[in-house]
Amino acid sequence: MSNAKIKVGVLGATGAVGQRFVQMLQGHPWFELTALCASDRSAGKRYADACKWNLRGDMPEHLRDVILQDCKPGVDCQIVFGGLPTDVAKPIEQEFAAAGYIVCSNSSNHRYDADIPLMVPEVNPEHLALIELQKRNRGWKGFIVCNPNCSTTHLVSALHPLHTHFGLKKVFVVTMQAVSGAGYPGVSSMDILDNVVPYIGGEEEKMEQKEPQKLLGQFDGAQIAYADFVVSAHCNRVPVRNGHLLAISAEFIKQPTQEEMLNAWKNYDPLPQQMKLPSAPTAALIYDERQDRPQPRLDRLKGSVPGMATVIGRLRPDPLFHWKFLALGHNTIRGAAGGSLLNAELLVAQGYLGGEAALLAKQLQFA
Amino acid sequence: MSNAKIKVGVLGATGAVGQRFVQMLQGHPWFELTALCASDRSAGKRYADACKWNLRGDMPEHLRDVILQDCKPGVDCQIVFGGLPTDVAKPIEQEFAAAGYIVCSNSSNHRYDADIPLMVPEVNPEHLALIELQKRNRGWKGFIVCNPNCSTTHLVSALHPLHTHFGLKKVFVVTMQAVSGAGYPGVSSMDILDNVVPYIGGEEEKMEQKEPQKLLGQFDGAQIAYADFVVSAHCNRVPVRNGHLLAISAEFIKQPTQEEMLNAWKNYDPLPQQMKLPSAPTAALIYDERQDRPQPRLDRLKGSVPGMATVIGRLRPDPLFHWKFLALGHNTIRGAAGGSLLNAELLVAQGYLGGEAALLAKQLQFA
Amino acid sequence: MSNAKIKVGVLGATGAVGQRFVQMLQGHPWFELTALCASDRSAGKRYADACKWNLRGDMPEHLRDVILQDCKPGVDCQIVFGGLPTDVAKPIEQEFAAAGYIVCSNSSNHRYDADIPLMVPEVNPEHLALIELQKRNRGWKGFIVCNPNCSTTHLVSALHPLHTHFGLKKVFVVTMQAVSGAGYPGVSSMDILDNVVPYIGGEEEKMEQKEPQKLLGQFDGAQIAYADFVVSAHCNRVPVRNGHLLAISAEFIKQPTQEEMLNAWKNYDPLPQQMKLPSAPTAALIYDERQDRPQPRLDRLKGSVPGMATVIGRLRPDPLFHWKFLALGHNTIRGAAGGSLLNAELLVAQGYLGGEAALLAKQLQFA
Amino acid sequence: MSNAKIKVGVLGATGAVGQRFVQMLQGHPWFELTALCASDRSAGKRYADACKWNLRGDMPEHLRDVILQDCKPGVDCQIVFGGLPTDVAKPIEQEFAAAGYIVCSNSSNHRYDADIPLMVPEVNPEHLALIELQKRNRGWKGFIVCNPNCSTTHLVSALHPLHTHFGLKKVFVVTMQAVSGAGYPGVSSMDILDNVVPYIGGEEEKMEQKEPQKLLGQFDGAQIAYADFVVSAHCNRVPVRNGHLLAISAEFIKQPTQEEMLNAWKNYDPLPQQMKLPSAPTAALIYDERQDRPQPRLDRLKGSVPGMATVIGRLRPDPLFHWKFLALGHNTIRGAAGGSLLNAELLVAQGYLGGEAALLAKQLQFA
Repeated sequence: MSNAKIKVGVLGATGAVGQRFVQMLQGHPWFELTALCASDRSAGKRYADACKWNLRGDMPEHLRDVILQDCKPGVDCQIVFGGLPTDVAKPIEQEFAAAGYIVCSNSSNHRYDADIPLMVPEVNPEHLALIELQKRNRGWKGFIVCNPNCSTTHLVSALHPLHTHFGLKKVFVVTMQAVSGAGYPGVSSMDILDNVVPYIGGEEEKMEQKEPQKLLGQFDGAQIAYADFVVSAHCNRVPVRNGHLLAISAEFIKQPTQEEMLNAWKNYDPLPQQMKLPSAPTAALIYDERQDRPQPRLDRLKGSVPGMATVIGRLRPDPLFHWKFLALGHNTIRGAAGGSLLNAELLVAQGYLGGEAALLAKQLQFA
Repeated sequence: MSNAKIKVGVLGATGAVGQRFVQMLQGHPWFELTALCASDRSAGKRYADACKWNLRGDMPEHLRDVILQDCKPGVDCQIVFGGLPTDVAKPIEQEFAAAGYIVCSNSSNHRYDADIPLMVPEVNPEHLALIELQKRNRGWKGFIVCNPNCSTTHLVSALHPLHTHFGLKKVFVVTMQAVSGAGYPGVSSMDILDNVVPYIGGEEEKMEQKEPQKLLGQFDGAQIAYADFVVSAHCNRVPVRNGHLLAISAEFIKQPTQEEMLNAWKNYDPLPQQMKLPSAPTAALIYDERQDRPQPRLDRLKGSVPGMATVIGRLRPDPLFHWKFLALGHNTIRGAAGGSLLNAELLVAQGYLGGEAALLAKQLQFA
Repeated sequence: MSNAKIKVGVLGATGAVGQRFVQMLQGHPWFELTALCASDRSAGKRYADACKWNLRGDMPEHLRDVILQDCKPGVDCQIVFGGLPTDVAKPIEQEFAAAGYIVCSNSSNHRYDADIPLMVPEVNPEHLALIELQKRNRGWKGFIVCNPNCSTTHLVSALHPLHTHFGLKKVFVVTMQAVSGAGYPGVSSMDILDNVVPYIGGEEEKMEQKEPQKLLGQFDGAQIAYADFVVSAHCNRVPVRNGHLLAISAEFIKQPTQEEMLNAWKNYDPLPQQMKLPSAPTAALIYDERQDRPQPRLDRLKGSVPGMATVIGRLRPDPLFHWKFLALGHNTIRGAAGGSLLNAELLVAQGYLGGEAALLAKQLQFA
Repeated sequence: MSNAKIKVGVLGATGAVGQRFVQMLQGHPWFELTALCASDRSAGKRYADACKWNLRGDMPEHLRDVILQDCKPGVDCQIVFGGLPTDVAKPIEQEFAAAGYIVCSNSSNHRYDADIPLMVPEVNPEHLALIELQKRNRGWKGFIVCNPNCSTTHLVSALHPLHTHFGLKKVFVVTMQAVSGAGYPGVSSMDILDNVVPYIGGEEEKMEQKEPQKLLGQFDGAQIAYADFVVSAHCNRVPVRNGHLLAISAEFIKQPTQEEMLNAWKNYDPLPQQMKLPSAPTAALIYDERQDRPQPRLDRLKGSVPGMATVIGRLRPDPLFHWKFLALGHNTIRGAAGGSLLNAELLVAQGYLGGEAALLAKQLQFA
């Protein structure tokens, strides 16, 4: 049975995030895509007919004739990846979790629920402990895990080793975000050519109050104790296809030297890298020493798994905080589909799959 | 003699800033362009032959056949506008000042000299008092006044009434700057299409330490006492033609309410507006209440004199400072040529022209 | 009654074309905007609440509180400008025409009807003779006149004097069209950043078979005899905000010299220019001699009425046709709202207004 | 000696084309990069110090410390790839050829010389026969082969099977060319953001008269008999990073059906593909059936060797010619460095290497 893989499905397979899931699951060593689900409008159609593929490279040939299924439990898989828009995802993802599926969600609906893990596998793998609580609370046979929004992901990735070593007190961040972060069709060309739009609905609230403190919080046996630091965020949309760039300033409980900052990033070796999860890049954080880097076009695919690393640069003293620097990451790969995928890999590696899949998971990891 | 105007010249008339000077001087009520000066390479040629005009609208017809002169004293005018690159401007501008010309410089060479006024006419008209000191110190018959760099101009414009009323303590600013700020050809399209470049040489230093504190400083009778507040700046280049956008957070000695902030901007009525200088927009500061404004493409030409106002928006509380907001302004108009032009108008209105021009200046103002 | 103007309304006042109508009607010497009409969704709301204004400059202050009306006859005006999407415009525009209004339509619904004039006022003013036929045929008290699609307008404008003098046989055109041609939100930024889309639905058909031959056709007393020449078109969307650029090659019945070509354009003096219609630019056609012009950003607003002229350049021999050259024009001004507006001005000047408006029209023209 | 490879060098290794050569030579199965040559200004410096790498991905780590050599014969290799600007390349490339090197040139200096092969390996491999003539004529120990300019390459690639089967009579082409075609820094962002520049110096002449007819010509034993068809070209620069898009119309001696056109492309199987040269994509021509393809961003890297194929689409009847269609290709890969590289591979495979390299060449091909 050495060729058997864990069956996975994609909810919202025709959308921008859904397409990324489909793309990233091609040739995956552990997962086999066995269910493409879509809205009522598309269910029943061929994938090639219902989906306007707009990633570079073509729609995988063998999926063109696959018939889209309804977003309803009953589809043949253990894990579903959620690529549905936030406004429709909630009841669907809950129904799947209740029915016993593992739901790796991209929507923001459940990110802030006390019993649902909000995950960046490098940052807070221990938060998976919430799953037991969640299943108990809700009486679900399966469960939901979330990944944070695309800007928060790379902010928290860059901050994690710093928080561990020096303790964050204050974080100031100004984002310059790519248009793909708004989905498809998303941002009108009329709004963004030769322009910057200094407003993204709800984004500053997510970055300031809701996500970083939970992600960097501690599981105390019963709940997540939010980390105690303050974030201020200005969020902007820029005419860039992919890649969110963050200008960050930070102040710590214990002020680090420049060398200590660099070492914290350089020596960062979190669990997914130790476990060699398939979608974990060799280096989760890459520091680029050039004075004008990172840049979205040049660096968004940097690292051993394209689009999964966070690239850092321009560390320099800040007159108002301790240090300032830049972080950059791919928003639709690590910031969306790839983040969910890595969550799923962590779940497999940590033994969260039940039934036959559990055995399979074990075999796959040590293959 | 009612049609007589004050004679002015442009140094570096073929360059990007020089072209703006030429454009803005067309039809000027006080000034008549009588000298186009250029580098050795271009001097002696027709303006139309030496200059690749790249502003919208054509090169003024009557200037096409004008022969470019050398950048040497002797040209027929009282005021010269400096559009030369910083690396060649210094000795030339000094020579003109020594020879008795009023030099309105755009270069950074003299901005930080103790006896040279660094001017935004709305912000620090009283700094012109340095001129006497400068002439005495240097034994010059004329003098130099400078305008700040294009990002600092709009930062300081937005901050000025706040500083007056509430006293600045800390300013955090992240810029998203247009490509025209780097001159022509300036930023390669290879570097900026689908990209952001998070580095502009020397820009952060200018904004942090050198310019805002001098501009908002007090002339104490002998020198400028620099204002005492700290600035942290991250500077970025974005794929926008014109218009620098600034994300600003600020903390004050006396914390203002939201209403007090808005009133400080709304009631701002500085000297150039009171004197109705020709290039001073009716409102130097414009607050836009829409949640997603200002934006470069839509707002860079806002106001009664296109490109001369600073547009502010999105005032909201900052978790780490008192308030955060956005400011936007045109970088090659108010941030360069238009800033120098307004300096010249202030000099005229304040009686800094000597000889016959002084009388003429008086007549023009009350015409 | 010297201040009285002709009352006009806009159908679809909240959309991209509708906003242009509203903008261009400000301060119009003949027309007064007395009715803003919109879809059911917006009717009854304040204009400022229902309309996301996305032109440079603000929504006219005095219109902010105007209540949007239904797109139904009964609104107080003689002329309505049609800014509705093609798929909803048809019955509405017909209803207005039937009820006695003059409808200046932008949609493609009626462009090819034998009894409806498809107009570029410089090109075919005599086609207005169809109006009588139209009213008789349809039993309408009012009537509809159309303007062509935004690319055809500038193609035909550039070709008109050539056709008159030399007789067109073959026209080859490749367009590079701005995103604003697709309306708002129109083209997704995801599709056009760093890209060209070589397909615009229906556009090539309009340019090849439907519009140029009618526009350059002759009214023979009963109908339009289509002009007899063949057009081949390739249409492309490029990442440009405004301005359609056309690469054109043409062959004539009588082969002109280069000088004859240039003279045909230079000496072009059609009716709207002779009559000095308010929106007619002094020169309808502008030839730019520079080797790299026209360019959309630099030339789209060229001429005495910004956005209303067609700019031509790079005339040179074509190895396969007689001559090749470029034409450029603004697509949402002359190519849409401005084209309709000039149609309305021509109707006024030619005496097509009835009742009191007719007298008023006379007074306005000779004011 | 199974690990031995053929030694190659790059002239102009720090420039845009030079960097592509360096990038494409990494891991090449036949070639080993043993000499990086640069201008006087850079020779003697470390490659990492002299070269501002601006391709995605980093400069190859093992080349960072390599010392740049002068562009003079004596460097240790058999083949040199020419990435020097056209205005300096001529004497240098000639000196290398005279000294016995095989020079694969990108510059336009020798493209039109009667004894120098202008090559697209799929199109005219038999033109290599000119090499003997060239060596004899010039008394050189080595020789020069050229590749055409980046737009011509993809035009001729798409036309080649059509010419073979149906005989070209007339070709009309309008290009929309990426900024990278002008090198680095090349096109100023000031010129191209929100714009199209409808002029590229010398480009139309190359496409009309100089290159396609030579490329599709026949070697008659003594010289190339140019193919007898007429080309008309309009060339434009668009704000796209990479990928030239061509709108093409063509007329043939024998008018093909749509099916015959498609079959000519589908069944195309030229020599490099038959020989499985390392840089030859499995399919040299790819026809995309979607109505809005090819597009630069989505298709420029299509195919089995990214950037080496030509993508064709939108075949439809042309009212003035027989057929119209689109072709797209990568300009700095197949259109420059990759084209030269494939030329070199063809030379190796066809036995044009002398001395020990000849034996090595044989071993490598059959490894």
